[in-house]
This record gives sequence, structure tokens and C-alpha cells, in this order.
Amino acid sequence: MNNTPFRIAIAGCGVVGSGVADILIEQGERLSKQLGREVSLKKILDIRDFTGTRYEPFATTESEDILGDPEISAVVVTIGGLGFAASLSQKALQAGKHVITSNKEVVAEFGRDLTRTAFSNGVRFLYEASSGGGIPVIRPLSICLRANEITGIQGILNGTTNYIITRMEDDGIPFESALKEAQTLGYAEADPSADIDGFDAARKIAILSSVAYDEFVSYHDVSCRGIRDIKPCDIDLAALTGHRIKLIAESLRLPEGISASVEPMLVGPDNLLFSVRDVYNGILVSGSYTDRTFFYGQGAGKQATASAVCGDIIEIVKGSTDATLPGFVDKDAKLIRFPGESRYYLRFSGIASDEDAKAAEDCGFTLSAHYPENAAIILAATSPEDLENKVAGITSKLGISPDICLKVLD
Amino acid sequence: MNNTPFRIAIAGCGVVGSGVADILIEQGERLSKQLGREVSLKKILDIRDFTGTRYEPFATTESEDILGDPEISAVVVTIGGLGFAASLSQKALQAGKHVITSNKEVVAEFGRDLTRTAFSNGVRFLYEASSGGGIPVIRPLSICLRANEITGIQGILNGTTNYIITRMEDDGIPFESALKEAQTLGYAEADPSADIDGFDAARKIAILSSVAYDEFVSYHDVSCRGIRDIKPCDIDLAALTGHRIKLIAESLRLPEGISASVEPMLVGPDNLLFSVRDVYNGILVSGSYTDRTFFYGQGAGKQATASAVCGDIIEIVKGSTDATLPGFVDKDAKLIRFPGESRYYLRFSGIASDEDAKAAEDCGFTLSAHYPENAAIILAATSPEDLENKVAGITSKLGISPDICLKVLD
Repeated sequence: MNNTPFRIAIAGCGVVGSGVADILIEQGERLSKQLGREVSLKKILDIRDFTGTRYEPFATTESEDILGDPEISAVVVTIGGLGFAASLSQKALQAGKHVITSNKEVVAEFGRDLTRTAFSNGVRFLYEASSGGGIPVIRPLSICLRANEITGIQGILNGTTNYIITRMEDDGIPFESALKEAQTLGYAEADPSADIDGFDAARKIAILSSVAYDEFVSYHDVSCRGIRDIKPCDIDLAALTGHRIKLIAESLRLPEGISASVEPMLVGPDNLLFSVRDVYNGILVSGSYTDRTFFYGQGAGKQATASAVCGDIIEIVKGSTDATLPGFVDKDAKLIRFPGESRYYLRFSGIASDEDAKAAEDCGFTLSAHYPENAAIILAATSPEDLENKVAGITSKLGISPDICLKVLD
Repeated sequence: MNNTPFRIAIAGCGVVGSGVADILIEQGERLSKQLGREVSLKKILDIRDFTGTRYEPFATTESEDILGDPEISAVVVTIGGLGFAASLSQKALQAGKHVITSNKEVVAEFGRDLTRTAFSNGVRFLYEASSGGGIPVIRPLSICLRANEITGIQGILNGTTNYIITRMEDDGIPFESALKEAQTLGYAEADPSADIDGFDAARKIAILSSVAYDEFVSYHDVSCRGIRDIKPCDIDLAALTGHRIKLIAESLRLPEGISASVEPMLVGPDNLLFSVRDVYNGILVSGSYTDRTFFYGQGAGKQATASAVCGDIIEIVKGSTDATLPGFVDKDAKLIRFPGESRYYLRFSGIASDEDAKAAEDCGFTLSAHYPENAAIILAATSPEDLENKVAGITSKLGISPDICLKVLD
């Protein structure tokens, strides 16, 4: 039993970092008692001026104060961006300190290198908070469900876009207004691209897939499409067919390889993701023995994300060493385009009258829903190749081409 | 890094035990490769005759063949019942072998003793499969969410009763027929009392509560009521008010103590437990930092439960030691009756006519739903003490007393 104090440095005292500091300050005594070992905050590395705040006694602006302090067992890296966060993580691991991060950019880009560095230095690199915020999912995938061959993951992994879509649904407002509202509330960044174009969700599904399939899925290879093109009429047409639009991050393990994508889809009411609204996240994992397991909770936010960071700290303090190097460090996944069939939603603008609808039906396509000046066709199960032919057929027969085409997930 | 083979004995090769054996036989090679250490099945202790089956090479009928074998690192105890399963677990731990069990009776009754024995022998006693079947929940509670002060758990923890209620809902059949169907399908035992009277769910909420609150909650102290009294008219009246009836296992941590109960409740559509149907389980955990987190999956069944057992094996093989003795080993929880207010559903039979309904309204109680010969009143938020007064008031004014009274969970 290791009785030496477990002292922690936090690098980056922004939203998540200050959340971790607060938990360590407020719960440190309880956790130390429960874990039989002193767990405490020792330093906070940040360029901000913390004079007069509860963080003042811990503040430093020098990396060396952390890296060179032999009393510090672990560094929590809650700095945003890539460069400094990654190099500090690397240096901390090389200095024999455990590193725990919520920075999904660092994990998606450098996670395998950092994992290897951790392994060869006898310490851990943990990142539960990098996907799904406060929801326990990395540890369940890497331990609890590991006896399974995981065959697929479907998730709502970006709270900002889910909030925007929920607002569009509830208030009938256009995308731009919902985005502005999300920015005002602090859910979306001034430059919202990482969220609304799907890159954030792509990083997260790449991380989860690498852990689940034990092969490295690069987020650069995740096919990625955001929600900028979703119009209020899509939300309404989807509702008329009993669906909700969601930004779905999905990966599937097939004999030929792994398919991974982020795209808006129509989700049916029998899918558990249908009920995931506002800033919440949900992750559905399909396993060979457990069938479907579902994890749900706050996908972002100061306290929830900080809770996940502290879960990683607790794992280490409880004595978990992990004698194994994950397979994704050495093996690259073969990424493929999903070859299977899906149903698809097509929206046509300019189908305004019953006559237009009749014309469509005469062409052999039943309109699934009809809304002022717009109509939707939901295609029966179709392969990606057939989809192009079918869309070309519809376009030539109706004389109009669809404005948008979305997968349907039941 | 420990390179010695990790050899496993399974005690009890029934439904779950044979599932674990199958996973070890089928996935042993993959897991060994991923974990960097040979993980394999060595012995199966059972009195059955396995001649000609895949289990034959491992079979033994002598406990000593397991306990005395220095090559065996862990014993999976999948024997049912209390006596032999508990004493074998104790002996295996004393012999320096890790013990993993799915037997919730053993965990609920002797879990704290076995945990202490494991701790003092430098091995682990793990029981992820004892609550929630294949759903990862014990490890998420004890590690991932541990920074939180957990304030409450609400769950559907018994698949058999959930299946029975779902059948009553879908097919309008009475309880007895649905139970018979569940027995035919092997979901319910010949003596179904442990499931339908709530004792199984009581054991599971006691286990989860002990882990979550780090104080020992004895299942003997869980107030427990089953689903025998639920009539098809209750299902219908609940549906008319927008609810579904579910057997809810619940515990709450309050400043005065912990309340823990199992009882059928009306659940509203905004609660995630509303969508948990058939043999599935769902567990909603409220934490001080994460707010609500939800876990969902197969709560029983050979493969799902075996997957959870193997998750515990994997945790140990990955090098997790756990240097801490949980608080529930030494501290008893103070159990209290839930002092807060709830809404309540009351069903009256014999209210057949509109006149009867009018009479009830004249007494100041609005019928929430009306169904041939039965009517429901849903009371506004009421404390347990006030409930008795209100029911007495209704009874004296209407001249009839309610046949059933259920809590409403929104």
C-alpha cells in the first residue's frame, strides 16, 4: 500500500481546469479518506493572475515548477489547443508523472504517441473526459465490455450541435438564430466550426473507436459533415415522419475494415438516441455478448467534465497500473466506406401543390411528408451506389433535384 | 509486467458459468494477445457430467482441485444460492486467489466480509455482474463517478418483472398469464418470488447503494414491495395519464440518512426509465457534479452477464490492484423512510358511472382517468404522513377505499 501523498498539478485553469481544482479543493479530504492516501492539489500552471482567488496559493506561470517538482505525481492537462498542451503532456510523462487530459485534440492527434511514452515511463496517460464529457465510457469500453468484440458505436457526441437542433425543433427558429443563442449562452465558441462542421464529434468517435476496436482510427479519416445545411423545414418534415434530426457520430467494425462518419441523420423513436436532447450526449455500444449498451449524461460543462478527469485520478490512486500497451498504438485501422444499405431522406423544395405530389407519385415515389413548398421522400433500404442512381432517376423524372439527402437511423 | 499465465477456475457451470467458459474458450487467445498475458480457463468445478461437451477437459467435482492448484489465479463463482458459494469464495480468497462472482445473494449478504478477506489476502473480490447484468455500473460508480457525492440511484434492476409488465402492457393480459409466459421462456424461476416480490431488486439496489455511498446498506433494510397486485386496469389507467408502471429500485442519500426501496411506480415519459422495456435494465445515477447519468443494457442473460464477469477478470489482468478497503466494509448506513413529498396514484374499483365520477369530484378529488369499473386519482405532491390522512378522507367521502396506491415518478 502506497501511503505517499498523491499531489496533483493542473495545467490550464480555464473552464475544465478550474472545475478540477474546485473538486480537489472541495472533495480532497473525503477522497483522501476513502482512498487511504492523501490526494491534493499542489500547483496550477496558468498565465492568468489569480490574486485574491482560491487558486492563488497554487499559482505558477513556469512549467518547470511542475515538471521539476518530485512531489507532483500527476499533471492534469486542461490547456486547449494542440502545441503547448501536447508538448507539456509529453514532458510530464517523460518526467515520470501520470498525465490526465480532457483535451480531445491532443488525444485524437497525439494519443498513441503519448500512450507509448507513458507506457515506457511506467506511468499512465488517461483521457476519460475527452469523449462524452462526464459520461463514463472510455473505461467501460476498455475494461468492462472488453470481452466483447465491439461491432459498432453510435453516438451524439457534440452537445453544442445537439443544443442547436433542439432549439430549432422546439422554437422553429433557423439554424443561424439557434447558433447565435448557443454562442450567447457560452455553449458555442466565437468560431463555431469545430462543433457545427462535425470535427469535434469526429475526434471523439475516432478516440472511442480506437479504444473499442483496439486499432488506431485517425480522425482525419472520419468522413465528416456538419449541420449547417439543416433547415427548419427539415426538422418539420422529419417530425412529420416520426423522426428527429441528430448529428450522429458512428463507427462500424466490418470484416473488410472500419467505417467511421459524422453526419446529420433522421433518428426514429425506437432508437435511444432519439431522446437525447439539449446539451446531453448519448453513446450506444453494440457488443458481441452484451448486444446494445447505452451511456447517457452531460457531454460537456465544467463540473461534469472535471468529474471525469477526477475519475482518472481516482483510478490511478486506487492502484491501477495497467501492464498493457493498447493495440491501437501499433496497429492502424483500415478505414472503408460503409457498404451496407440504409434508408435515406430526400427533401425537395418547390413541391408546393397536390399536383406536384401527384406527379411525384406517378414517377413511382411516394412523398413521405409534405410541408409548405417542400416535400420529403424516404427511400427504402438503398446502398450508397444505388442512392446516386435513384437520386438521378428522381431528378430526371421530377425535373428537380433534392436539396438535401440524409441517412435514416431506426 | 507480470508475464505468468492467468489461469481461471469456474465454480458452477450453469447459465452464467457456461457463458464465462464459452467466452474464455472463444476469446482467450484474443484477450491474451491484447492483455500481454496468457488468460485461460483451467478448471470447471461442477457435479454435472460434461462427457462429450467442450467443458469435459476442464471438469472436476472436487473443490480442492481448484483451491489447491497454485497455477489458478482467480476463481469465478457462478454457483447459485448462499451457503456453498459463500464458503467457497471465502476459501478461495484465503488461498490467495481473486474471486469474481455474479451471485448477488452472496454479495448482498457476505460482500463486506469477502471484501475484507480479499483485502487482507492481497487479492480482489469483484462483482460487476451482480447488479445490472451486462451493464457496466459498479466500476463506473466506484471509480469514474467517485469524485461526485452520489445523491440518488433509480433503477429498473429486475428483467423478469420488467418483462412481465411489458407483456401486460402490450397484450393486455393479466399478471398470472404474463408470469406463466415468462416462466415458459426461462425468464422466471419455478418459484418466482425473488423476482416478483422485489427481493432480487432489493439485493441489487443494496449493492449499488453500498458502493455509491461508501456505507453498508443491508438489503434486509430495503423496504420491498413487488408487482403481484398490479392489474391490467392499472396498466391502462397509468397509460391514460401518460405513465407506465415499472418496478423501481431507488435509494436516496439525505442528510438524515439513506432511504432505499423497491416498489412499483408510475413513471412519466420524461424519465429515461420510461423507455426501458422487456428484459432490459436501466440505472439512473444522480451525482453532485455530473447531474444525471444513465446506464442501459441487458440486465440478465447468459452472455451479457458472462461479459460482465469477464470485465472483472480483465481489470485484474490489466494490473489493477486497488490499495483501498471500501468504506462500506466498516460503516453501516443509517436507513430512513423517505421523508419527502411524492405524487401518488390511487385506484378505486366500483366507480363505474359518470355519476360516481361526479360524486368523487363533488368531494374535491378530480378523477385523472376513468376505465370500465375503475377510476384513478393522482394526488398532488404529498408526504407519506399526509398520504394516510388523504386516503382516509377520500375513503370516508366516497364510501370506498382505494385498491392500490402507487408512487408517481416524473
